[in-house]
Amino acid sequence: MRNVYVLSADTTKYGKSPLSARELALQASKKAILDAEISPADIQASFIANAFSLAEKQGHLGPIIMSGLGIPDVPASTIESACASGASAIREAWINIGAGIYDCMLVVGVEKVSQLDTITATTYFSFGSDFVFEGACGASFPGLYGAIARSHITKYGTTEEQLASVAVKNHANAMSNPNAHFHKRISIEDVMKSPVIASPLKLYDACPFSDGAAAAILCSEDFLKKTGRKSSEKVLIRGSGRAGGTGALFQREDLTTLNAAVMAGREAFKMAGLSQKDIDFAEVHDCFTVAELVAEEDLGFARRGQAAKLTQEGYTKIGGELPVNPSGGLKAKGHPVGATGVGQVVEVFEQLHGKAGERQVEDARIALTHNVGATGGSCGVHIFELT
Amino acid sequence: MRNVYVLSADTTKYGKSPLSARELALQASKKAILDAEISPADIQASFIANAFSLAEKQGHLGPIIMSGLGIPDVPASTIESACASGASAIREAWINIGAGIYDCMLVVGVEKVSQLDTITATTYFSFGSDFVFEGACGASFPGLYGAIARSHITKYGTTEEQLASVAVKNHANAMSNPNAHFHKRISIEDVMKSPVIASPLKLYDACPFSDGAAAAILCSEDFLKKTGRKSSEKVLIRGSGRAGGTGALFQREDLTTLNAAVMAGREAFKMAGLSQKDIDFAEVHDCFTVAELVAEEDLGFARRGQAAKLTQEGYTKIGGELPVNPSGGLKAKGHPVGATGVGQVVEVFEQLHGKAGERQVEDARIALTHNVGATGGSCGVHIFELT
Repeated sequence: MRNVYVLSADTTKYGKSPLSARELALQASKKAILDAEISPADIQASFIANAFSLAEKQGHLGPIIMSGLGIPDVPASTIESACASGASAIREAWINIGAGIYDCMLVVGVEKVSQLDTITATTYFSFGSDFVFEGACGASFPGLYGAIARSHITKYGTTEEQLASVAVKNHANAMSNPNAHFHKRISIEDVMKSPVIASPLKLYDACPFSDGAAAAILCSEDFLKKTGRKSSEKVLIRGSGRAGGTGALFQREDLTTLNAAVMAGREAFKMAGLSQKDIDFAEVHDCFTVAELVAEEDLGFARRGQAAKLTQEGYTKIGGELPVNPSGGLKAKGHPVGATGVGQVVEVFEQLHGKAGERQVEDARIALTHNVGATGGSCGVHIFELT
Repeated sequence: MRNVYVLSADTTKYGKSPLSARELALQASKKAILDAEISPADIQASFIANAFSLAEKQGHLGPIIMSGLGIPDVPASTIESACASGASAIREAWINIGAGIYDCMLVVGVEKVSQLDTITATTYFSFGSDFVFEGACGASFPGLYGAIARSHITKYGTTEEQLASVAVKNHANAMSNPNAHFHKRISIEDVMKSPVIASPLKLYDACPFSDGAAAAILCSEDFLKKTGRKSSEKVLIRGSGRAGGTGALFQREDLTTLNAAVMAGREAFKMAGLSQKDIDFAEVHDCFTVAELVAEEDLGFARRGQAAKLTQEGYTKIGGELPVNPSGGLKAKGHPVGATGVGQVVEVFEQLHGKAGERQVEDARIALTHNVGATGGSCGVHIFELT
């Protein structure tokens, strides 16, 4: 495997959009291509991360997007791992380039769901669970993550206010992210007073349905040299991990951990030859507030049951020991399913280049992304380094 | 890139099935695992080829299938390239193993559509076209391939009877394929008298909607040695090619060729270091009769405009110069979308091992598969050799 680099990464604004998936994907792709200062003709292959485009009556997004970029000959498959589609696509592009098959690839994640009403969108999302045993029985994702939250509370004494503190932090971070879905500062009280959606989770414990797209250009060292980039501009993919977990929660012994995240994290750290203390900041999959706490514990950033306290104490805020989700996370930046894992790479790219404005993590050089599909049926973890 | 081998390949019966996608996928996977004489625990990662599982209210098939096999930790993403999903999944597994990421992978393609009525199924399939410009305007796949057939007739003088001869041959081949959707010998007259579905195409020019699954175990040489396989049992993936084409037909200059197939074919032949005359038989994507002729011309097996005549003369029948679709092809074996490209590998595996019964291609040692997405938005070509 050769070294693989992120040459550029860019995004549309997340939120409700009048654009279709194809238009969103083209917008993000064109931005990433312009940022990279390459021509579309330099792209040799592409992966599209998407979960629900059939809800917009369009499958087979690859040729549609490549045709829109003027490069219809370029092979482009869709990769789907529910909400972890983005990390899966990044990983497969990393493998394709690392193996020497291609030198330059476009990864674009996209989702368009705002044409669906809330009930229909929730139902579509639940197709990412084990639908026969969960969604069809009424256990949509708020319910499933509600069970995870209840378990965490029961096992570790985590409080609802501590869960709320994750939302408060991530909304604060998103205030200075121009592409975030929400620009709304909230308080613990706001979260606590918001309607219960699946006890103990309230509306403000949940990420929104977002439209959006994010794109990254990945390349080999040979390609990077051809572009004349200075070495200080190299973002290396230093570690990649990927694992699965049971489709349904009833098949788990412990709901306070996602085994897929534990395994994917270990694989990524081992490959990178790094430990948790080497990470300057992390973008983790906070589809619900409790998910951020579970992520920190699964990845070894916090001991079991300690993540809530650390969050409350400011350990994970920008300026803290380990900033988590400086972008605002899924919670406030938004969660356009297929785009989410690629969008995490956008935040990493901006942060590592010192271009994150008011939400800049000081001296960030090594960062981790953690992207979960459903309740941990899939997880992809990547570690990036500015070399 | 290391050498990658097909250790086993097996399939469910194609046709209308009472089983769900997960059940079909598990059935094919278990057969392939048993054939390979390995344990599910030997599988390190998996790709699922599927296009329309959301129509059955289930996305994120990976963890569902891995959980069913008792290996929920195994990472498994879905790969979608419309009807070429199978070849895309085979290719990505080949790259993962070739790159040294994994030593043993399961590729399983699956589709379940018989719960949909014909109109709904046709509509779902049309989501694989550029739906805004084609499906939504009433141009479903019979119409689009009708335009391709009309172009071939106009440009080369191909006759409707010649198109029919493809269907007659493939139905004859399927008679001895126990897993084929159709076991019904047909005549030119039967095809000509069948209802016109999109002039010049008739019902018997079209493949059916099939349910089904096919699975293959791919592995490295190291893994193969551990299993104690004899060298005469090795099926090497000797060449792989993949390319794209415009999403919509209106963007093409010539409807009598699929550029994606031309490019993918060239890539596969170049990698294999082989030429057309080295191929003992081919499984090509005959979703409509005309598609088989276009495939033979795109892959260089026939000169432009000559494939129809060759078919009529028996060149592509079992026992002819180049048997094409000895399995019965999509036309008669059936077309469970995500399974199709993996199912082609099943036929290759059986033929190369001399286990194809009455439809055996004599002394087959090198075979080619050609799997097309939509009207050529995607194409994957692979060349296999019994070493």
